Amino acid sequence: MKLYHSASSPNSRRVRIFLAEKGLSIPFATVDLGKGEQHSDAYRAINPRRVVPTLVLEDGTAIGEVPAICRYIEESHPMPPLLGETAKEKALVAMWERRAELEGFAAVMEAIRNSAPGLKGRAIAGPHDYEQIGELAERSKLRVNNFFADCDTRLSEVAFVAGQRFSVADITALVTVDFAVKAINLAIPGEHRSLKRWYDAVSNRTSMTAQ
Amino acid sequence: MKLYHSASSPNSRRVRIFLAEKGLSIPFATVDLGKGEQHSDAYRAINPRRVVPTLVLEDGTAIGEVPAICRYIEESHPMPPLLGETAKEKALVAMWERRAELEGFAAVMEAIRNSAPGLKGRAIAGPHDYEQIGELAERSKLRVNNFFADCDTRLSEVAFVAGQRFSVADITALVTVDFAVKAINLAIPGEHRSLKRWYDAVSNRTSMTAQ
Repeated sequence: MKLYHSASSPNSRRVRIFLAEKGLSIPFATVDLGKGEQHSDAYRAINPRRVVPTLVLEDGTAIGEVPAICRYIEESHPMPPLLGETAKEKALVAMWERRAELEGFAAVMEAIRNSAPGLKGRAIAGPHDYEQIGELAERSKLRVNNFFADCDTRLSEVAFVAGQRFSVADITALVTVDFAVKAINLAIPGEHRSLKRWYDAVSNRTSMTAQ
Repeated sequence: MKLYHSASSPNSRRVRIFLAEKGLSIPFATVDLGKGEQHSDAYRAINPRRVVPTLVLEDGTAIGEVPAICRYIEESHPMPPLLGETAKEKALVAMWERRAELEGFAAVMEAIRNSAPGLKGRAIAGPHDYEQIGELAERSKLRVNNFFADCDTRLSEVAFVAGQRFSVADITALVTVDFAVKAINLAIPGEHRSLKRWYDAVSNRTSMTAQ
């Protein structure tokens, strides 16, 4: 396996953390997003969606989309389980990770994509160009704040996002929080103590520093 | 298992088709979205996100989010496989289904949510209220047309969305096409012959009429 990634890409970070939690060390190839290397012919031959990360297997098969990459890694390296063990756990982890991604991660991404001057005409990652919508960037920030509040409620009831055990849902939620601080200057509000308790605990895992 | 669904909800239809492809017949409970039953205390106790469908297991566990529901069904009833068999197939099906969902299905949903008069102040499904953005509805339609074009290219190379075998990715893509016609009046353009060939073949499966 070889991972095409970018150091600054939060989607790449999700996979780097996932690999570190598995104790796996695989070759990385850097795609320089600042230089637009994701649009090069060489990278488009690997991932026609022109996004990072992509996991390339020994036989040349290229897997894009973070949950798909994590699924491959989990199936080929089941221990420790990060996507759940029983049918029920697998479904619940999938549900909670998806909510973290669609309600949190995607909202942060949408806020940046629709406001950053450097992303003018590139409001959605991928092969097609779309204009930014300023009003959407503002709405996205409301969504991120609602996500923080919902996470706080959830984490006042359970230790980890998907329940009693650390899972990929925690990775996605943690990367979302860090990304919100860094990219749109939205931090966890002080009153969200359960979210903060969880954030501090998960941030301390060695995997979270995976570069 | 019991499925809470709505006859008119395309997300519910995805699960109904999935169950029909598995040959499973389980009890359904109807949630009347027109009457706002998804916001009732009774339904919120089942799914606090107030969306359909939800799969409820014998022990009372409630699973929301279509890919999570499909994951549970696949794990508990593996045959015929709809999410792939090997690690590689599972990852590729996940990748293609996700693209169909984020680039196609979600774009159609976004177009409707941000334009339908009845959804004023409800631009995103779920527990939080968001204002509609007209400009976003227009951008979403461009995305749907790009999705059709990308699908056509893909389906000029392979028989089904995820490759040589029918999978959940075809269900999501098929429901997207039907939903686009019904809800935002966007049909497959005549020049997309590969997409049309696939659409006709997949539409003919008995599962597609699952109510």
